[in-house]
Amino acid sequence: MTTLQDVFPKIVEWRRHLHMHPELSFEEVATPEYIAEKLEALGLEVTTHVGGRGVVAKLQGKHNGPTIAFRADFDALPIEEENDTEYVSKNPGVMHACGHDGHTAALLGAATILTESKDQLSGTIVFIFQHAEELPPGGAKEMIADGCLDDVDYIFGAHVQSGLELGKVNVRQGPSMAAVDRFKIRIQGKGGHGAMPHTTVDSIVAGSKLVLDLQQIVARRVDPMDNAVVTVGVFEAGKAFNVIADSSTIQGTVRTFKPETRKQIEEDIRGIARGLEASNHVTCDIDYLNGYPALVNHAEETALVGSLIQETFGEDAWIQGEPVLGGEDFAYYLEEKPGCFFHVGSQTEEEWTSFPHHHPRFDFDERALLNIGELFLKIAHHYLVAK
Amino acid sequence: MTTLQDVFPKIVEWRRHLHMHPELSFEEVATPEYIAEKLEALGLEVTTHVGGRGVVAKLQGKHNGPTIAFRADFDALPIEEENDTEYVSKNPGVMHACGHDGHTAALLGAATILTESKDQLSGTIVFIFQHAEELPPGGAKEMIADGCLDDVDYIFGAHVQSGLELGKVNVRQGPSMAAVDRFKIRIQGKGGHGAMPHTTVDSIVAGSKLVLDLQQIVARRVDPMDNAVVTVGVFEAGKAFNVIADSSTIQGTVRTFKPETRKQIEEDIRGIARGLEASNHVTCDIDYLNGYPALVNHAEETALVGSLIQETFGEDAWIQGEPVLGGEDFAYYLEEKPGCFFHVGSQTEEEWTSFPHHHPRFDFDERALLNIGELFLKIAHHYLVAK
Amino acid sequence: MTTLQDVFPKIVEWRRHLHMHPELSFEEVATPEYIAEKLEALGLEVTTHVGGRGVVAKLQGKHNGPTIAFRADFDALPIEEENDTEYVSKNPGVMHACGHDGHTAALLGAATILTESKDQLSGTIVFIFQHAEELPPGGAKEMIADGCLDDVDYIFGAHVQSGLELGKVNVRQGPSMAAVDRFKIRIQGKGGHGAMPHTTVDSIVAGSKLVLDLQQIVARRVDPMDNAVVTVGVFEAGKAFNVIADSSTIQGTVRTFKPETRKQIEEDIRGIARGLEASNHVTCDIDYLNGYPALVNHAEETALVGSLIQETFGEDAWIQGEPVLGGEDFAYYLEEKPGCFFHVGSQTEEEWTSFPHHHPRFDFDERALLNIGELFLKIAHHYLVAK
Amino acid sequence: MTTLQDVFPKIVEWRRHLHMHPELSFEEVATPEYIAEKLEALGLEVTTHVGGRGVVAKLQGKHNGPTIAFRADFDALPIEEENDTEYVSKNPGVMHACGHDGHTAALLGAATILTESKDQLSGTIVFIFQHAEELPPGGAKEMIADGCLDDVDYIFGAHVQSGLELGKVNVRQGPSMAAVDRFKIRIQGKGGHGAMPHTTVDSIVAGSKLVLDLQQIVARRVDPMDNAVVTVGVFEAGKAFNVIADSSTIQGTVRTFKPETRKQIEEDIRGIARGLEASNHVTCDIDYLNGYPALVNHAEETALVGSLIQETFGEDAWIQGEPVLGGEDFAYYLEEKPGCFFHVGSQTEEEWTSFPHHHPRFDFDERALLNIGELFLKIAHHYLVAK
Repeated sequence: MTTLQDVFPKIVEWRRHLHMHPELSFEEVATPEYIAEKLEALGLEVTTHVGGRGVVAKLQGKHNGPTIAFRADFDALPIEEENDTEYVSKNPGVMHACGHDGHTAALLGAATILTESKDQLSGTIVFIFQHAEELPPGGAKEMIADGCLDDVDYIFGAHVQSGLELGKVNVRQGPSMAAVDRFKIRIQGKGGHGAMPHTTVDSIVAGSKLVLDLQQIVARRVDPMDNAVVTVGVFEAGKAFNVIADSSTIQGTVRTFKPETRKQIEEDIRGIARGLEASNHVTCDIDYLNGYPALVNHAEETALVGSLIQETFGEDAWIQGEPVLGGEDFAYYLEEKPGCFFHVGSQTEEEWTSFPHHHPRFDFDERALLNIGELFLKIAHHYLVAK
Repeated sequence: MTTLQDVFPKIVEWRRHLHMHPELSFEEVATPEYIAEKLEALGLEVTTHVGGRGVVAKLQGKHNGPTIAFRADFDALPIEEENDTEYVSKNPGVMHACGHDGHTAALLGAATILTESKDQLSGTIVFIFQHAEELPPGGAKEMIADGCLDDVDYIFGAHVQSGLELGKVNVRQGPSMAAVDRFKIRIQGKGGHGAMPHTTVDSIVAGSKLVLDLQQIVARRVDPMDNAVVTVGVFEAGKAFNVIADSSTIQGTVRTFKPETRKQIEEDIRGIARGLEASNHVTCDIDYLNGYPALVNHAEETALVGSLIQETFGEDAWIQGEPVLGGEDFAYYLEEKPGCFFHVGSQTEEEWTSFPHHHPRFDFDERALLNIGELFLKIAHHYLVAK
Repeated sequence: MTTLQDVFPKIVEWRRHLHMHPELSFEEVATPEYIAEKLEALGLEVTTHVGGRGVVAKLQGKHNGPTIAFRADFDALPIEEENDTEYVSKNPGVMHACGHDGHTAALLGAATILTESKDQLSGTIVFIFQHAEELPPGGAKEMIADGCLDDVDYIFGAHVQSGLELGKVNVRQGPSMAAVDRFKIRIQGKGGHGAMPHTTVDSIVAGSKLVLDLQQIVARRVDPMDNAVVTVGVFEAGKAFNVIADSSTIQGTVRTFKPETRKQIEEDIRGIARGLEASNHVTCDIDYLNGYPALVNHAEETALVGSLIQETFGEDAWIQGEPVLGGEDFAYYLEEKPGCFFHVGSQTEEEWTSFPHHHPRFDFDERALLNIGELFLKIAHHYLVAK
Repeated sequence: MTTLQDVFPKIVEWRRHLHMHPELSFEEVATPEYIAEKLEALGLEVTTHVGGRGVVAKLQGKHNGPTIAFRADFDALPIEEENDTEYVSKNPGVMHACGHDGHTAALLGAATILTESKDQLSGTIVFIFQHAEELPPGGAKEMIADGCLDDVDYIFGAHVQSGLELGKVNVRQGPSMAAVDRFKIRIQGKGGHGAMPHTTVDSIVAGSKLVLDLQQIVARRVDPMDNAVVTVGVFEAGKAFNVIADSSTIQGTVRTFKPETRKQIEEDIRGIARGLEASNHVTCDIDYLNGYPALVNHAEETALVGSLIQETFGEDAWIQGEPVLGGEDFAYYLEEKPGCFFHVGSQTEEEWTSFPHHHPRFDFDERALLNIGELFLKIAHHYLVAK
């Protein structure tokens, strides 16, 4: 019987092909075609243009049983690669700097093995290849709307993780990645001569007050046992030292783990802005963009993945790290179905494996893809192979 | 012909009688009776209970001419006198600590002389003796409503001034004394456990923000060429260090010279409180008390008084001091009629003349009353005696 | 062999005796005498006045082995009891309103059983009866300094918990109860006339700024993945609306779980106050009282207690609740030795068991004491009885 | 005897020549040569390059007497003229848009008349033609340092005033134009990930606090009877909404009339910045530029000018306007010598006279130059011609 190890050369080949031909979020054309071609070669039933650019393949086992889904994402980033490997990006200014090429290759590898063992399977496997993870509103939402999760009972996904040793896997139950929102507030005052404040509405004073008021949200309104961040990253106002600025603009980000906290903070920000309008005679134009929700791993499926990690890579291999404040649109799948998203260590002693995600020199030890594939296979066996 | 100098012993006698029998604002009974009795003794037409407790006397000159009014106030303060003069207050806890006894005596003195010289006068003199200057809403408003200014063309008033040398008179055109308002704001939040801010509405944070927001009024909303003060003098909230305070209360004062600035600041405070309600979920209960308006001396009448001061007491005697931020309900008369209010120096080398107004040891050199009387006579001559 | 059930009537008797004769923290006299008497009656080696008012008894097993300690606290609160039970407090204004009477009775019960089974034990048991848990700096610190933990290998303690169903036990690994600190800051400005701010140093404006600046600590300086509270509960300044307040005083509390966060917040508060001094010309007099540290349950001992809970009361009996922001000086023992502190449900369907701790009508179902005792026995068996 | 009226055609010629050949501040070459040539043609003793680019001429009267100085400025502005007169600027991007061409021509005209009447004069007249009034640090400072005021007893200067009717002159005793200072504060924090504030020093929060703290200066620290402005006109910080900004920069202006207030505000700003450093862990780099001081007209000289205005142009011609918040380096002369600076109305019914100063279409009715000259002559007569 073919093993994942046997398929590893193909996984590497696929991954490197994708790495050389990266495509930006919502602009993927060649990538989904390439994936569909590989899946069709396996004899799977393939649907393209799911939710726009996604690819879905179904593997029907010989017997009846549950339906599980695996998801890999395949979009790249607007980054100019600075590596000099033989598989360096051929698209100027575009790079697989987050490992999505690897996720897709690993899932193709797992699909190869699983297709071969079709007759031992009781149930169905759905392979979801998703576009546009990097750019909100993201591809997951569209693919779900287009039915990719219909009849799915459980869903799993994986991500390589720079900074985590090869052989370790990081996954925790519950909120694991944050909801990431963005706000931009334009505070419209009334400009005028710097020496005649009474004839103006000072938008810098108003904006400064807004920034300080926002500090009260985390300090007073969020449960101290909960976690949240409200950051203002940009403050822009005025051009001349002696002219009162007509308007100020602030931009910031909100990170939360609980939907109710997320909602409450948005309301608080809007309320504070309304208060500013009443007290300072300004008008606040708020552009509030809800990014991905928090990614919340389900308890039973996480326990399963944890035990499979320990079984496969050893007792110490399961790392239950703190939640992180980055976002991931896998969160949408977990809002619909039980499942789990895990981070697979991809760093070895070689320095070139140590650059952080989104760095122009990001790369990973490809053996991490074997580890992803291994866990996908174990998960499939758990649900679909009679013990 | 009798001179003011001749009448001086009577002035002193009257003043000391009043000093020994002080009565609080809006509680004056014996004082107006005493005054009415003296005026009737002069043969004047006297009306009592004007606007409640005021006394008005009219002196009709032999010939036709303009009508001028002089006003003296006669209420005392809730202060326990600490002087040991022979004319010390006989009413425990009540004291003429601002000189109103003197104002009344001086005007009675002037009335004596003017009544004698009735035949030389072309026009009418109205002597207004006013109750309750010390306690807003004050007696002036009531007396005006009751008609004391009807047919009056010009009005003048005087005040002794501790801290200003005997022989000097302080008076300036335009805004001279401030409008004095008072506000009290109760910020109702929702108390709770100090470790659970998210279940509460923190009234101390809200109150602190309110205090800082109020600083923007003078800094940004008042014309820098205008003058105003917004002060918070009291902040009270909470009883236990580990309990979030249910409500905060702040109290403060506003001082202005222009009616439009006064109005605008009240609106700004109310607007800031509304903003606080919107941003911090509190309720603000505002108790805003408008005290006396700013006292604004009219240009021509002030020029007249200035020149009479110089003519009477020498070139250097006219002091044009900065406006002061205390209040005086003579302001109401000047809103109705042209006129002027002036401060007559009452301090000499004796230490006992140097205590500030409202001090338990306040007293003044009684010769200041002669100076007040002298100016009243000169003013009357200017308008009513053909030159 | 005697069972705990057999001893239950005695436990109830002891508890009610203590309940009727409550003594305030650092004023306990009769209570430790009563405890010592009971322990001596068991034939144990008893030391009194440990760390002032504590009582320690040692039980030496027949064979060698580890030393484990159990701790019960025995002080009461300055609360007037409002219950009308037959065992209501006989000391006016003093009440066992937190269940310490129960803790002590339960531990006496466990000691009774364990002493009987002495011959089966390999190792030593230390029974720590502690005074003054309710009042920082607390009795634990003194008892430790006096040697009560010498040679102890593990320590355990329990607390009844109103609001948690009888039969459940709440315990979690890691930080479980907060460090509770207190601060009082007197902001000395310079008082003066409300209309002359430039001659003063406005302590209310400075105090308000301080309150708002403190909001930045949790919002910006504490790791969003950590938990902390900074609350100002009292703000007092000024007496007259038109006088600038000479000084302001604020009082507040700080709650943290990590020692480094605790230390950093204190430094931040001090730094903010120093900044205020520099910017606002005030002087800040800071009284910063470090209360108990955070209570941090050790991993292995918590896992042990958890499994014993499940074994004894069923799979669902182990509740792993969120950390709470109250304090407990058992924290000091856990800084010295591995161990665990757990909360034993004491509420049943009867309404009288539902009042919160420190309420004048607080009471609990006494069967909770059996549960505490049961767990103590199981823990002792785990360490000292060969399996 | 020649009258100013006779010289008017020359004045206009000179003014238009200068207008066509404007030169920027500190770059004047042809202008001072042109002026020197005209003065030498009168037979006066001329010194060039005074304080760099200034021109000074002395006229010695026949008899001994006081020394008075008149000053005219002659630099132009970096503005592209949009007028289409025959005397429009020939230097692209440079324009006499403030009337300095007129000031110089008017003073040359007065010098012509005065030189002719030399034999009637008892005393000395110093004609000061100053470069670089528009650009701090300005030419006045340098010329004074170079001795232009040595032996001068009194100094006078004039400015045309758009918006004031021809025939009126605006001048008031005391502070008349503000001291104009500029500050720029760079608040250096420590940038970082928007979701990890605890690893950063948030420069936007610090900058916002600084802006609000600055509001306390005018609100609390400046005498309410004094006048001042502190305005922040620019706030710049951050580039990305989800990155904490490494540094913030604010720029602003301070306007005052009294030197002690000016100094105090600078100290207050520096103190507030120091406080911010202590409380928020930032570093504040302050660039504080003191511009021209307040222009303070001396009492006697202003009274003189006032009476000459009334004598020359009628009782109503003397306007005593409010102080204005613009700056003028004539202020330096008045710090050294008694004197007065007055604004001469230059607007008529023609629309082209109504554009404000510094506007690309600024122009004035040239008869205003006659009025300036007339007053200069009257002032000279007052001091140097026996009555």
